[in-house]
Amino acid sequence: MNAPPIQRLVTELAKLPGIGNRTAQRLAFHILRTDAEEANALADAIREVKERIGLCEVCFNLADGPRCRICLDERRDASLICVVEEPGDVIPIERTHEFPGRYHVLGGALSPIDGVDPEDLKIAQLYVRVTATDAPGIREVVLATNPTTTGEATALHIADGLRERAPEITVTRLASGLPVGSDLEYADEVTLGRAFAGRRAV
Amino acid sequence: MNAPPIQRLVTELAKLPGIGNRTAQRLAFHILRTDAEEANALADAIREVKERIGLCEVCFNLADGPRCRICLDERRDASLICVVEEPGDVIPIERTHEFPGRYHVLGGALSPIDGVDPEDLKIAQLYVRVTATDAPGIREVVLATNPTTTGEATALHIADGLRERAPEITVTRLASGLPVGSDLEYADEVTLGRAFAGRRAV
Repeated sequence: MNAPPIQRLVTELAKLPGIGNRTAQRLAFHILRTDAEEANALADAIREVKERIGLCEVCFNLADGPRCRICLDERRDASLICVVEEPGDVIPIERTHEFPGRYHVLGGALSPIDGVDPEDLKIAQLYVRVTATDAPGIREVVLATNPTTTGEATALHIADGLRERAPEITVTRLASGLPVGSDLEYADEVTLGRAFAGRRAV
Repeated sequence: MNAPPIQRLVTELAKLPGIGNRTAQRLAFHILRTDAEEANALADAIREVKERIGLCEVCFNLADGPRCRICLDERRDASLICVVEEPGDVIPIERTHEFPGRYHVLGGALSPIDGVDPEDLKIAQLYVRVTATDAPGIREVVLATNPTTTGEATALHIADGLRERAPEITVTRLASGLPVGSDLEYADEVTLGRAFAGRRAV
């Protein structure tokens, strides 16, 4: 019953992750209610992001120039590299203000079932980056892939590769354990097992 | 830490209803991952909907021409008008396939606290529509405003106005009661009270 332009907008909105048909309908009606200026600001932002954002030539994070803001920032410790799966993983880490180094974005995780092999990720580029003769002495690579099957497999694969090519570099993995503020009663056994294995003296 | 074009997109997305900052971030990264064609299809759909969609001159529903599809449909019963608050309310009613008539979209509900007075809604236009000498004989007006304080107040106000101007027209209100598939145990007392008051012989 929607007019075709409305239906088109609903269809396009429903392609976004986590947006079902009803939510798309609601968003479309919201866009119809707002003034044209605001709606067009959203349309322009979408176009602009596709036109102006590419990948950083060093770390493959999203960038609006040849290099991303973090790689351009001289204050960031270039001897410390944090390896993540997706550009979106950089944001939560930055929010912690705990990591002073730079990043390397793989573009996914190894998953042979889905046809994602090492060549599909920026793994070779990581090896080049840490072994380059003009590279700043890299001390440590933190493997911050997700604590999932594919993330763990990716971390193990890269840890092996780094040990082979640059045995002097420390390779670490983010700690796994109970989330802060959680309750033992509701912890799954794998997480609880990890929390035990990683227990620390207080 | 986001590049400005990404931050702009996140900001615009977060203005949508029900979309918080985190979801906006996730949607933005999704848009960055999809190919440009698909992203631009969304941008175009937004622009197009603002350019091409206006209000029906008869019922004030959304329309891609001077009149909406329902007002143009000769098979719809012109003697039966369903009054709703928003264009979005037409969709769920159409989905029931229970209503053969036409609509009248008020553009909101009366709410003196929020400064919404009768002049701000299409109430005068409804009176003109039902009393026009060239109008098809209107038999019934169904007041399908929401079962909320403002929706009820709006329905009462319009019912009074219609009784005064066109006492021969039947004015009805949608039934209030227990939602189908719900459980008495979880019904709030107002709804349950309505269900009792509206009980019917079986």
